Amino acid sequence: MLRIGVGEKAVTGMIENGGIYSVPGFMANGVHAGLKENGRKDIGLIFSTVPAKAAGVFTRNHFKAAPVLLDMERIKSGVAQAIMVNSGNANAATGKEGYLDALSVSRKVSSSLHIDDALVLVASTGVIGHRLPVGKIDSGIDALVLGLHEKGIPLAAEAIMTTDKFPKLACRRGTLGTREVTLCGIAKGAGMIQPDMATMLAFIMTDAEINLSTMDSLFKQAVNRSFNAITVDGCTSTNDTVIIMANGIAGNKTIKGASRNTAVFKEMLFDVLSSLSQAIVQDGEGATKVIEIIVDGAKSVRDARKVAYAVGNSNLVKTAFYGGDPNWGRIISAAGSAGISLPVENVELFFEDIPVFSRGRGIGGNQEKLVSIMSGEKIRVTLSLGMGAQSFRLFASDLTDEYIRINAHYHT
Amino acid sequence: MLRIGVGEKAVTGMIENGGIYSVPGFMANGVHAGLKENGRKDIGLIFSTVPAKAAGVFTRNHFKAAPVLLDMERIKSGVAQAIMVNSGNANAATGKEGYLDALSVSRKVSSSLHIDDALVLVASTGVIGHRLPVGKIDSGIDALVLGLHEKGIPLAAEAIMTTDKFPKLACRRGTLGTREVTLCGIAKGAGMIQPDMATMLAFIMTDAEINLSTMDSLFKQAVNRSFNAITVDGCTSTNDTVIIMANGIAGNKTIKGASRNTAVFKEMLFDVLSSLSQAIVQDGEGATKVIEIIVDGAKSVRDARKVAYAVGNSNLVKTAFYGGDPNWGRIISAAGSAGISLPVENVELFFEDIPVFSRGRGIGGNQEKLVSIMSGEKIRVTLSLGMGAQSFRLFASDLTDEYIRINAHYHT
Repeated sequence: MLRIGVGEKAVTGMIENGGIYSVPGFMANGVHAGLKENGRKDIGLIFSTVPAKAAGVFTRNHFKAAPVLLDMERIKSGVAQAIMVNSGNANAATGKEGYLDALSVSRKVSSSLHIDDALVLVASTGVIGHRLPVGKIDSGIDALVLGLHEKGIPLAAEAIMTTDKFPKLACRRGTLGTREVTLCGIAKGAGMIQPDMATMLAFIMTDAEINLSTMDSLFKQAVNRSFNAITVDGCTSTNDTVIIMANGIAGNKTIKGASRNTAVFKEMLFDVLSSLSQAIVQDGEGATKVIEIIVDGAKSVRDARKVAYAVGNSNLVKTAFYGGDPNWGRIISAAGSAGISLPVENVELFFEDIPVFSRGRGIGGNQEKLVSIMSGEKIRVTLSLGMGAQSFRLFASDLTDEYIRINAHYHT
Repeated sequence: MLRIGVGEKAVTGMIENGGIYSVPGFMANGVHAGLKENGRKDIGLIFSTVPAKAAGVFTRNHFKAAPVLLDMERIKSGVAQAIMVNSGNANAATGKEGYLDALSVSRKVSSSLHIDDALVLVASTGVIGHRLPVGKIDSGIDALVLGLHEKGIPLAAEAIMTTDKFPKLACRRGTLGTREVTLCGIAKGAGMIQPDMATMLAFIMTDAEINLSTMDSLFKQAVNRSFNAITVDGCTSTNDTVIIMANGIAGNKTIKGASRNTAVFKEMLFDVLSSLSQAIVQDGEGATKVIEIIVDGAKSVRDARKVAYAVGNSNLVKTAFYGGDPNWGRIISAAGSAGISLPVENVELFFEDIPVFSRGRGIGGNQEKLVSIMSGEKIRVTLSLGMGAQSFRLFASDLTDEYIRINAHYHT
């Protein structure tokens, strides 16, 4: 297996015997249709040459955007052939008109592609509460469809960017029996990022042949460990959407149940989703650091998760990391208000491998080493609760004046 | 009844027939003992000339600071005579040594005051995880006690400030039968402010004669409506403490049960706590605006509270207010991820009295009026859930680059 990185560096990556970020049987494209004022790509399309098995995970926000409502209906069939996405407008809080707008865009796409409209999924990201500029989008769809090509995935990745600083792509290739299968994904994130599920868009494509319920189950597990284990600002958007499409073109023996093939595919899937989700944190709005928060020794994953999010969403913790201050007191304080009972005397906290808190109090010394750890771009903190054997790992970004600048002035 | 304001302006306020911020039978003082490097007051003392009935509400953080642990024990007696407080060091995450340090300070105070040590309560605020500089504090206690006087409450208010920009005081006077009673309070806040309970210190003094269980019950109600209904940064500290002392010197008929006296006292108490808690938000770290968030039409107060906090703690909402952007989409999105089921079609949102969201979508127009509302220093938003008759009101501050500056560089 050969791995491709994420983010800016990834653009130079190559998969052996294949193009950059291409998956057999998938074509993609991204163009500018006039939704973004800066002339950048703002509509994207992913197309499978044959109908693909499909599964999705969507936002739990009660104000679901129109495209989310449409996709949740359509994905029940377990099959899809295209994903049409726009940035610059979320088509959220737009009422029934918004739903009709989403439907109208999907119809234009299905008609251009000559496929059943029910096989088109849609996604939107951008400002909330404004009607989707359907005219602009429609006028771009012909060029979008005409330009579909096998190496178009990076163009689609660009088209879904909003405040993202770099496009997010990841690919893995694996061998299933005598067949080689490929799995690629694109994502956008940056702000309104706290999973539950992860507040972002991600689209995963594979040519593997896989049983639908096996895929659905592996996909949900992978999302829980990746997009549902990151936070930038604790805000869950109205538009979160992660979709996987598997078109079966690789011709492998169907991935199903507990098998070697399943294990290989699972590893590829987890790895691609993990790469994409970490890229989102790294590119969090204004972020300068990625904080890896491991909570172990918990009674349940749910408890570990609660504590991890309490720490990762604490503005005081996030600003301390930004300032390079090994202020473990803020971490302890955040953990203590997570809403679960903690055995104060047993809790231990580490910065990388350096213990900083134990038996209810701080551990002196190592200040120089701690300051050096805090100057890194990726910092691991481990909080051991001393209550059980369950754990949860969360990736969080720091909180900076750049975040304030971006969000105090990003408009409506 | 005559009301005194809060904050900077309040310093010029006067109570008829009395000094500024004085309560019969209470003396106070604040001096510099060397905990703060800038030479400002850092230890304060409140003393009742006779033992007073006392009640307290403390942080729910599981990592409770040493002074909190000590007070929680002592307040069980329902009686106290002095509150010794220091800023500059929280005496939190300091283990058993920290507890002994708190005890040692209280002993020095009780010995200087010639009172039973069990009648001394202690409170600390400042950096977490450093041993309390007991030597410095002890060396200041004699001067602190010697300087106790009836008009010393503002000095104590200064002594508890950390990143506060102004001292917080509020007084009310009322008539119970033929007797006049006074109730004054001081508070500090600024950062790590999210109640549950409100993350701050507040000390309330009254000369009223009141039944202990009546006081305890009214006090808890008042705290829930004030200090437990504000948020600056969503962080709950290890040191939150609100204490009330009633010394009975006014000689009124004991306040008890459902009576006219109880109603008068309750109003005074609610008003003083409400003033102090709003002053804390107004002085939130880096805050430029106070956002009053009213959630009504909820099935339960608990639901209303959840939604209000989801909105008030959303960094995206808080930065939008800082930027003066009437970005109601962020409010709707935050409400939708509060973890309660919402009837999207029934939810309505108002900025002051202007409707901005109804029937699942934004309401256009009024942009000029909205921009004008957003330019104010205090802005009310009302979210009507359309599910029931319960409500909750939260005061939140905005999130600014000044907050980042303060917290990225405040040290350990």
